[in-house]
Amino acid sequence: MVSQIDLQARKRAARAFFEKFKVIINKILRGEDPVMEILARTRANIVFDEERKLLLPGSKMLTRKFLDKGEAKRFANTLLMASLIYDALLNDEYPTIRDLYYKGKHTIVYRDLKGRRREENTWNEQKESDRLIVDVEVFTGMLREEMLILSKEKGKVVGNMRIRSGDDIIDLSRMGHGAYAIEPTPDLIEFIDVDAEYVLVIEKDAVFQQLHRIKFWQKNKCILITSSGQPDRATRRFVRRLNDELGLPVYILTDADPYGWYIFSVFRSGSISLSFENERLATPSAKFLGVSMSDIFEKNWLTPKERKNVIIKAKEEDIKRAKEMMRYEWFKNSKKWMHELKLFLKEKKKLEIEALAVKGLKFLAEVYIPQKIQTKDWIE
Amino acid sequence: MVSQIDLQARKRAARAFFEKFKVIINKILRGEDPVMEILARTRANIVFDEERKLLLPGSKMLTRKFLDKGEAKRFANTLLMASLIYDALLNDEYPTIRDLYYKGKHTIVYRDLKGRRREENTWNEQKESDRLIVDVEVFTGMLREEMLILSKEKGKVVGNMRIRSGDDIIDLSRMGHGAYAIEPTPDLIEFIDVDAEYVLVIEKDAVFQQLHRIKFWQKNKCILITSSGQPDRATRRFVRRLNDELGLPVYILTDADPYGWYIFSVFRSGSISLSFENERLATPSAKFLGVSMSDIFEKNWLTPKERKNVIIKAKEEDIKRAKEMMRYEWFKNSKKWMHELKLFLKEKKKLEIEALAVKGLKFLAEVYIPQKIQTKDWIE
Repeated sequence: MVSQIDLQARKRAARAFFEKFKVIINKILRGEDPVMEILARTRANIVFDEERKLLLPGSKMLTRKFLDKGEAKRFANTLLMASLIYDALLNDEYPTIRDLYYKGKHTIVYRDLKGRRREENTWNEQKESDRLIVDVEVFTGMLREEMLILSKEKGKVVGNMRIRSGDDIIDLSRMGHGAYAIEPTPDLIEFIDVDAEYVLVIEKDAVFQQLHRIKFWQKNKCILITSSGQPDRATRRFVRRLNDELGLPVYILTDADPYGWYIFSVFRSGSISLSFENERLATPSAKFLGVSMSDIFEKNWLTPKERKNVIIKAKEEDIKRAKEMMRYEWFKNSKKWMHELKLFLKEKKKLEIEALAVKGLKFLAEVYIPQKIQTKDWIE
Repeated sequence: MVSQIDLQARKRAARAFFEKFKVIINKILRGEDPVMEILARTRANIVFDEERKLLLPGSKMLTRKFLDKGEAKRFANTLLMASLIYDALLNDEYPTIRDLYYKGKHTIVYRDLKGRRREENTWNEQKESDRLIVDVEVFTGMLREEMLILSKEKGKVVGNMRIRSGDDIIDLSRMGHGAYAIEPTPDLIEFIDVDAEYVLVIEKDAVFQQLHRIKFWQKNKCILITSSGQPDRATRRFVRRLNDELGLPVYILTDADPYGWYIFSVFRSGSISLSFENERLATPSAKFLGVSMSDIFEKNWLTPKERKNVIIKAKEEDIKRAKEMMRYEWFKNSKKWMHELKLFLKEKKKLEIEALAVKGLKFLAEVYIPQKIQTKDWIE
């Protein structure tokens, strides 16, 4: 019933798990102190790889000990989490990260050295158990998706391509007015036929619907994707694979505001909190197509009157975020991005993609996007 | 290029538009005062139809006049919005509600009776233009989807059925590990083959992923849907059509909290803000499968120890919302729902669906859902 692809993925993950944790078990069996060698995930151990344009973990390792009062709980909890995941792998289960939180959350009752009854919870908040899942990822060198841990997904795709997912072959050019919702484990997807020249990622689902409905992807030979806001891991990995394995250039279209530009930077360089995963989730060659501040204030896409009608005053939080972004390595080292951010802080104005409707409802699809791509008017 | 189905829908909508607005045009041509007869959308003109279990608009009509200082702007804006939509219909365009906001937003410069230069914006906020779209809906008797106005969509579906959407036939049992993302115009979908006994709607996308991955829909012969939180219009209309046209019972599964129960009530009876649309979006026979307060505190699904590990303290806003819900007609008239809400206010505790993972990761799919359906343990 369950697909062969999943069964193989399970076996692969269970074997890798077993190999990794065997080291700890053997230490215990030999009467040695159990320790885990694990990559440090502190902010100080994250580096921006200028050449590869990626946020990556540095080389600092830490040793987590069981026989250390300050580390015993985290050590025990990491092993508890690992055993929950391993059990799920063996039992053909597909936990979500929240399932793992609930499955492992319990109270340990014990007596201390003076014989007093004590209680201790394994964990209280989901952010604690989520951190343990990352510990297991980093220790085993596997992404949680490879361990068949599922999650909420928002990404959608249409275009001239066929894929194999599970036991099915799906034609992404035959989705009618709907779309294909990307699976939580995009590494298990096989690309079969692809007849496209580039990938266009749209921040906004409603704009995606619109471009899909006029078959933009067919006319322009592209793969059309929406991240529905801040991209989830599966959408990022899917985009990366299209770029990496098929050599398709990736263009990203967002609102003209710091939130939109941050979405681009997550696609391109990754997020600080997931530095371990960035190496496989980020697409370093992704290009920001628009909407840029220079599109609005230095180029002639809009007349001053049109601009006045659709421009929005930036909020305090936009300004704060822009100032933060000016301190990020990967913006700081880009003249074009610094120009954008300075222009934003000078004008204190932002613009939504849909504002281009003042030029007519076909302007975005028939003029703006094709011209920007043709004239290579993007920011890296 | 564009599908025949859309072309026909366009013609249908444009014709209905023309017929409706001709009345106003003829008045103007005859030198009469232009007026619009329109259903009142005040809170006082919304009734709960006990028999049909729907929130519906009452019969109160209002007359909106152009030659009335207090109504002239709203009248003119309604016609402006109608003309934007009509133009889009004729020009093969697919606006989103936000496009319409931007397309119509501009400043009118005029001189007043004393010759002074004055400025007036058509509208400032999107909520103003959204209200005008509803005015056009109510006046023409058409939903905005019928006018090919698009929007962001979150709903996904898999199951033993084939549909026709646009020019394609899509097999919803062959989506691999992904899913079919429902289109923004679900009335244009044609159901072809359906081999299912019921519809199961899941609030949470991650739980949907999980049930899909173990092919719950195949084993249990159902159509599996997620609304990804509060349902959008398309998901509601899609569920309603499955119920209405195919006679499939609809079961809804949410977290055990007032937010989840409200999601059920939106599926079943509609939302107050959309009373005009409820007649076609709501599914009055939908059943709340769980998780209920009585499941947690009066039945034996969880042991007291398990419950203690996974139960969550309710927040102030949960309690406030529950108190509000006790005043809603459609909860007030239900003994079972009043019992649930009272139990919630007594215990002040809530529970997520994923908490059932304490019983093992297969418990939800193999025990809880099938048993609840089999024993008809639901709330209407």
